[in-house]
Amino acid sequence: MDGETAKININTIARVAKVSTSTVSSFINGTEVFPFSPETRRRVKQAMLELNYRPHIGGILMRRSAQRRSKVGFVFGEDCSQPVLRTAAIPLVQRFLCDLENALDTRLDMSLEILRVNDEDSRSDWNTQLLELDCLINFGQLNNLMCDTLFRRNLPLIEVYSTEEVRRHGDFSGIDAEFDFLFWRNDRQIEQLFEHFHAQGRRNFLFISSCNIKALRPDFYGYDAEMKLEGFKRALVSHPDCTGRILSAKNVNDFNMFREFELTRELLRENPGALENADAVICHNDIVAQAVASVAMEAGRLPGRDLMLSGEGHFRELQYWYPKITTGCVDYAQLTDRVCELIELRRNDRISPPRKIEIPTLLLTPDRS
Amino acid sequence: MDGETAKININTIARVAKVSTSTVSSFINGTEVFPFSPETRRRVKQAMLELNYRPHIGGILMRRSAQRRSKVGFVFGEDCSQPVLRTAAIPLVQRFLCDLENALDTRLDMSLEILRVNDEDSRSDWNTQLLELDCLINFGQLNNLMCDTLFRRNLPLIEVYSTEEVRRHGDFSGIDAEFDFLFWRNDRQIEQLFEHFHAQGRRNFLFISSCNIKALRPDFYGYDAEMKLEGFKRALVSHPDCTGRILSAKNVNDFNMFREFELTRELLRENPGALENADAVICHNDIVAQAVASVAMEAGRLPGRDLMLSGEGHFRELQYWYPKITTGCVDYAQLTDRVCELIELRRNDRISPPRKIEIPTLLLTPDRS
Repeated sequence: MDGETAKININTIARVAKVSTSTVSSFINGTEVFPFSPETRRRVKQAMLELNYRPHIGGILMRRSAQRRSKVGFVFGEDCSQPVLRTAAIPLVQRFLCDLENALDTRLDMSLEILRVNDEDSRSDWNTQLLELDCLINFGQLNNLMCDTLFRRNLPLIEVYSTEEVRRHGDFSGIDAEFDFLFWRNDRQIEQLFEHFHAQGRRNFLFISSCNIKALRPDFYGYDAEMKLEGFKRALVSHPDCTGRILSAKNVNDFNMFREFELTRELLRENPGALENADAVICHNDIVAQAVASVAMEAGRLPGRDLMLSGEGHFRELQYWYPKITTGCVDYAQLTDRVCELIELRRNDRISPPRKIEIPTLLLTPDRS
Repeated sequence: MDGETAKININTIARVAKVSTSTVSSFINGTEVFPFSPETRRRVKQAMLELNYRPHIGGILMRRSAQRRSKVGFVFGEDCSQPVLRTAAIPLVQRFLCDLENALDTRLDMSLEILRVNDEDSRSDWNTQLLELDCLINFGQLNNLMCDTLFRRNLPLIEVYSTEEVRRHGDFSGIDAEFDFLFWRNDRQIEQLFEHFHAQGRRNFLFISSCNIKALRPDFYGYDAEMKLEGFKRALVSHPDCTGRILSAKNVNDFNMFREFELTRELLRENPGALENADAVICHNDIVAQAVASVAMEAGRLPGRDLMLSGEGHFRELQYWYPKITTGCVDYAQLTDRVCELIELRRNDRISPPRKIEIPTLLLTPDRS
């Protein structure tokens, strides 16, 4: 919009259309009591078209003292610069936020928005993104400027993560970082799955991790991936009657989670015997597990019968898939409930000390129905 | 927020914290030139906490004359009342909008937001949803109040659909519904796939449609699903040397696209022989096709070798899946380009007549790499 266009307002439109300013205002806001005549519609529209005028949002909000719907923001702390829809496509985010969006809508009359912060070291980026919120949920890594901006706006922060340890980004000196914290323990989940397969007589374990682990990405590994791996190692140590092998898919550019399907198939091709020698395979998530299933079935082995196989996440995308596999996940319903409770609490209580709450995980076997 | 809380503003905070109003303002907006002392931070924060004060968004926008980033809205016309993240999870929406979000961001410095309109027959719902936009993209069904609200705000509308015919909802008398229209033809896509398999010597066709067709849902079927079915029927008629059978999965509640995987497997179980007798299977989309693949492979038939198999959509979720299948899709890159061009055109030109542009479709064979 150039300088001249910017100066055009509803007075200009009224003058050009030869109607009153209040007519233009009612027209734009759809607040007329009696229908406009076709001629009035035509004249106002014509003026707007010719002057290329569009109403200014700030003005509309102020004039109406609009009751904006309260809004909860979501930041994917692991990579907050990702485009919004790419974040929305992550199966875990999808699974967690779909339930949450419904709950916020029906229980608290609030909406949910995924935020994107292009440069997480820019205060003005955070300022802009956190402008219209009533509360923020952050998943994973905590940013110093995010915390400071929330603090200055007196906005509550709810941290959510799949491990008890949260990585921080930036300098936190002088910065208040008080937040309510909801977490679950992915390492224990893997141990639980190990126990489950062990109880069914399985002794030869294979763990297929994400590529996002410390050994492959020492500077920026995922705690989530690393903790699952640690859980497997711990389970193995405490079961001396078992053998265990660990494989990790390679790191690639243009990574998206569904690509792990292909990468896992490659990994098994490059490690002949790994799958054949295992009678229980524990995978980083449901996508990796379905890749293992596809290879096993080509060799005539059916998961659940000829080998035990588990994923993680109980992702919506694969809930109806075949073969059915064992999986684990956070108790999504409880997670949603706790988030809603904390949002309600922080509406009026900004004083009481931060809460830290562990959310249980579930083990889901294929015969669930 | 109760009545008393609502009256608290930055003057109140300044008085309670014993600092100037401009200090509170700089604090909230992060615009201080020199860092605040820890004591000032503490006092301002304490006052905000105790009074449970949060800055009002309208005020911030006006005071700053904030340069809001231009925003493109997206309405999923087929069901605009769905929660935003549920819409974002539809593989077609995901595929189309991920590319578009990137293009808008990098080429036009605009953001993209999926809108949800709870009651599409409520003018005030549309008014609220269309408040902050510079342009709207609608996929599929057109709503009368949406068109009228856009008209009154002088906002351009770009209609996008996978068929040339667009269903309308509500009374359009007296309502202007001028829009630029980008479409592709799913029926032709199916005919193209039929030709492709025919050229490879296949003669016994099976088509697996969506449940969202006229015969099963006479009042509210999907044009998209219906047109694919029509495309198949037309192809069959024009190839008298071929046999063809049509199966449709049953309608269920709690529908999501990934559930079609399970429903398709059920369908094939209930129709023994249907798959065995076919040497080419054309499916409504990639999910249905992968379900067919899983059944075929259990019977020892490999898609691409022992039978021809096609999906539609080239969905991100299944691009790396096994087995590889033939698929068709709109040329997403061209679709994105045309959308961007139209948005740019309509920034300044609201006068020239609406454009109607067909976007080509692509046939993607498994050996693409």
